[in-house]
Amino acid sequence: MATELKDLTKRSENYSQWYNDLVVKADLAEQSAVRGCMVIKPYGYAIWEKMQRQLDDMFKETGHVNAYFPLLIPKSFLSREAEHVEGFAKECAVVTHYRLKTASDGSGVVVDPAARLEEELIIRPTSETIIWSTYKNWIQSYRDLPILCNQWANVMRWEMRTRLFLRTAEFLWQEGHTAHATREEAEAEAVKMLNVYADFAENYMAMPVIKGVKSANERFAGAVETYTIEALMQDGKALQSGTSHFLGQNFAKAFDVQFVNKDNQPEYVWATSWGVSTRLMGALIMSHSDDNGLVLPPKLAPIQVVIVPIYKNAEQLAKIDEKVAGIVARLKELGISVKYDNAENKRPGFKFADYELKGVPVRLVMGGRDLENNTIEVMRRDTLEKETRTCDNIEQYVKELLADIQKNIYRKAFDFRAANIFKVDTYDEFKEQIEKGGFILAHWDGTPETEERIKDETKATIRCIPLEGDTTPGKCMVTGKPSARRVLFARAY
Amino acid sequence: MATELKDLTKRSENYSQWYNDLVVKADLAEQSAVRGCMVIKPYGYAIWEKMQRQLDDMFKETGHVNAYFPLLIPKSFLSREAEHVEGFAKECAVVTHYRLKTASDGSGVVVDPAARLEEELIIRPTSETIIWSTYKNWIQSYRDLPILCNQWANVMRWEMRTRLFLRTAEFLWQEGHTAHATREEAEAEAVKMLNVYADFAENYMAMPVIKGVKSANERFAGAVETYTIEALMQDGKALQSGTSHFLGQNFAKAFDVQFVNKDNQPEYVWATSWGVSTRLMGALIMSHSDDNGLVLPPKLAPIQVVIVPIYKNAEQLAKIDEKVAGIVARLKELGISVKYDNAENKRPGFKFADYELKGVPVRLVMGGRDLENNTIEVMRRDTLEKETRTCDNIEQYVKELLADIQKNIYRKAFDFRAANIFKVDTYDEFKEQIEKGGFILAHWDGTPETEERIKDETKATIRCIPLEGDTTPGKCMVTGKPSARRVLFARAY
Repeated sequence: MATELKDLTKRSENYSQWYNDLVVKADLAEQSAVRGCMVIKPYGYAIWEKMQRQLDDMFKETGHVNAYFPLLIPKSFLSREAEHVEGFAKECAVVTHYRLKTASDGSGVVVDPAARLEEELIIRPTSETIIWSTYKNWIQSYRDLPILCNQWANVMRWEMRTRLFLRTAEFLWQEGHTAHATREEAEAEAVKMLNVYADFAENYMAMPVIKGVKSANERFAGAVETYTIEALMQDGKALQSGTSHFLGQNFAKAFDVQFVNKDNQPEYVWATSWGVSTRLMGALIMSHSDDNGLVLPPKLAPIQVVIVPIYKNAEQLAKIDEKVAGIVARLKELGISVKYDNAENKRPGFKFADYELKGVPVRLVMGGRDLENNTIEVMRRDTLEKETRTCDNIEQYVKELLADIQKNIYRKAFDFRAANIFKVDTYDEFKEQIEKGGFILAHWDGTPETEERIKDETKATIRCIPLEGDTTPGKCMVTGKPSARRVLFARAY
Repeated sequence: MATELKDLTKRSENYSQWYNDLVVKADLAEQSAVRGCMVIKPYGYAIWEKMQRQLDDMFKETGHVNAYFPLLIPKSFLSREAEHVEGFAKECAVVTHYRLKTASDGSGVVVDPAARLEEELIIRPTSETIIWSTYKNWIQSYRDLPILCNQWANVMRWEMRTRLFLRTAEFLWQEGHTAHATREEAEAEAVKMLNVYADFAENYMAMPVIKGVKSANERFAGAVETYTIEALMQDGKALQSGTSHFLGQNFAKAFDVQFVNKDNQPEYVWATSWGVSTRLMGALIMSHSDDNGLVLPPKLAPIQVVIVPIYKNAEQLAKIDEKVAGIVARLKELGISVKYDNAENKRPGFKFADYELKGVPVRLVMGGRDLENNTIEVMRRDTLEKETRTCDNIEQYVKELLADIQKNIYRKAFDFRAANIFKVDTYDEFKEQIEKGGFILAHWDGTPETEERIKDETKATIRCIPLEGDTTPGKCMVTGKPSARRVLFARAY
């Protein structure tokens, strides 16, 4: 291991520090000069781009189109929807002026008091208000519906305690905003997009998720129902990974968006919104990585295969270069992204550690003996297993290995979660288990008061009321009152 | 023509109104509730996405990677580079607070005076300052160079007079920011990216451009040299379509970014930045479109081919549907994006006008007689020419037709420009010609004073000192002083 890597804290020592170390050392992101705002570095951004591209394809396949709405929102718009303003006004960046001027003492620039805005503008924390004020002009008749728009954008929420990717003042996300003629259609859309998110999480991020609905306390401000996917991190904490909201007619009423239906009657429009963010980067990192660094699912790895030569002299390197060139070309033909690193200013050991840190799924190494024997060493990042194989048809082998790694990472995360979901029947048991972490399925009487009490006493929240699984009724572990079904608790990011 | 289209102003009547009508009626963009900020509608955004994808591929082919830097910039950062602050402080959105609270009279929300920021933050008008403050941490040695980063982002400049796409308070763009060990390498990078922009403009947007350098007056605030591509719009005005800046060591000095060179000596880093924005949408629209609507180059058209059926009854439609399905499948196989519009609630005439308005390059129409004769009507949007052809191998014909349209649109724009570049030798001639529009090549004595005088008296600016073309020296048309070569003048957007 190269010297630099010795500083990566072990998960068992301090999970939180391990995460921060990893994000910074693997060149994913770093803090910026602006409080709570991160710089997403090229390697981190390359992973995010792969996520974006895949999600965007899935949105388009389900009939959505992209658009772009303003960054700034008039302050008064936030107040239109009573719950929405409660949820978002407390933590937003406010633009009050539109000009700076040279300070009278010449020491730089100051805000020009003459350039005060009549109405302050808010940097969007989410775009329901500006979008529904726009949809008002787009919708007159049932023939204008549905509208199925998505936007990729930056948003800002003035979080007090921030962590790279997981909670930052500015973050990148997509937000879908759809408008429908009927309640049923809007509800179906909210569920459809939840399923798209779950599909993406499981089949691309290799991260198993539990789909469910949020309790009233945890619902999006302004939603009638919030659907969520919840994942379990290696430290036993939950991470909400995507939400899809059925907004009812709340925003249509707030912005007076009505349409004339087929019977020529005016009706308010039904709405959904749904989003995932750069938070998914945090989920991806924490789901699979280990004490050596990142472990990336091949489907989202910017570099899927790295090839490193080991050589005694320039002549030998030239021979390896030539041999590897053929392998690289054939891997690319199979659609595999591959990097051949024959840089001379770094030793093989440094390269090995660096690509392990960066989570490259497969490493191939060719040395002098390999050259003689027509062999190559293959290492898979997920298990760190090495084997030496013939070069014949190595490309096909690597392709299958990548598919196997994708599956294996998912299975590992799935097994971890299976071993860390607990059915608990008493509040004492609950308190004991929550300290150890994991998902807990327990009965709850359905009241916000009991939920609040559990949160205050244990720091655990209801992650969701699962859409699938055990629906047997029972008694609330806290109050003994009737419970319709077990709900999912955890401490959460 | 459908009724809605009658409202599209003719170019000859009012070019400016024609442009605004077209942007709105073709569903490209519209004004939002926030002064100067636009909503980019799905059809407009789909064109922008095609531009983005192509440019992004070209950036990556030239070795660049994407990253993301904060939206907000500490006010003091702007002051670090003297010219930069002059250029950008006057028109920026200033964040002063980070919280709203409920008004004491309960009438909505007000800014919470307790949540005032210690230092105000600026919404980025461009990101040199925040990026160079970051690069300081990334660069120690010559081995860390070059850094070749690009970001796709929104930026904000508080323009007083705005026009959709051409000049908006918020706009979308990409900004490349590179760091180099030598002056030569940075200069070469600035020129390389200018050439990428010119390639994109000419071969994708079908828009001929003149490459050149800006005069000192028109230079980017903080640059040593600004390279530009300039295009001529149909009304005889110029549109600056992309700029690439050689920044020298200005930002490295402002943010103290030094590296240790191969001789172990500290040196300031050399820089470039380069950008194109949603302004290119305006350039695209104005370069090719006509009184019937948009004319899009096939390479950037979201829909390249539309197929419309004309039928008497459901039985006939079913037969046309079946016949067209084969054509659609074969067009898709050729990588052509095609839409079959058999919607029953709109008449063919309405569809024809709508797709003309939206600039779909090729329209195919199949009616009852075509069905019998195995023929189809082909219309090309650029010339509006129609012909009836056999369906046999129609896909290959359409593919070639799209390539021909791409070429023809470029040639038309090129010929228009050639007919509207004038060599002028006296200031009187200049004043006369500038009223009629077009590019003017004239001698200038190289001083800012003369440039200012020309601008004050004629509203014309020096668009660039061309990199190619006639380099014969002469005498300034205004002062008679020596001129190194003719420079390019125009009134500009």
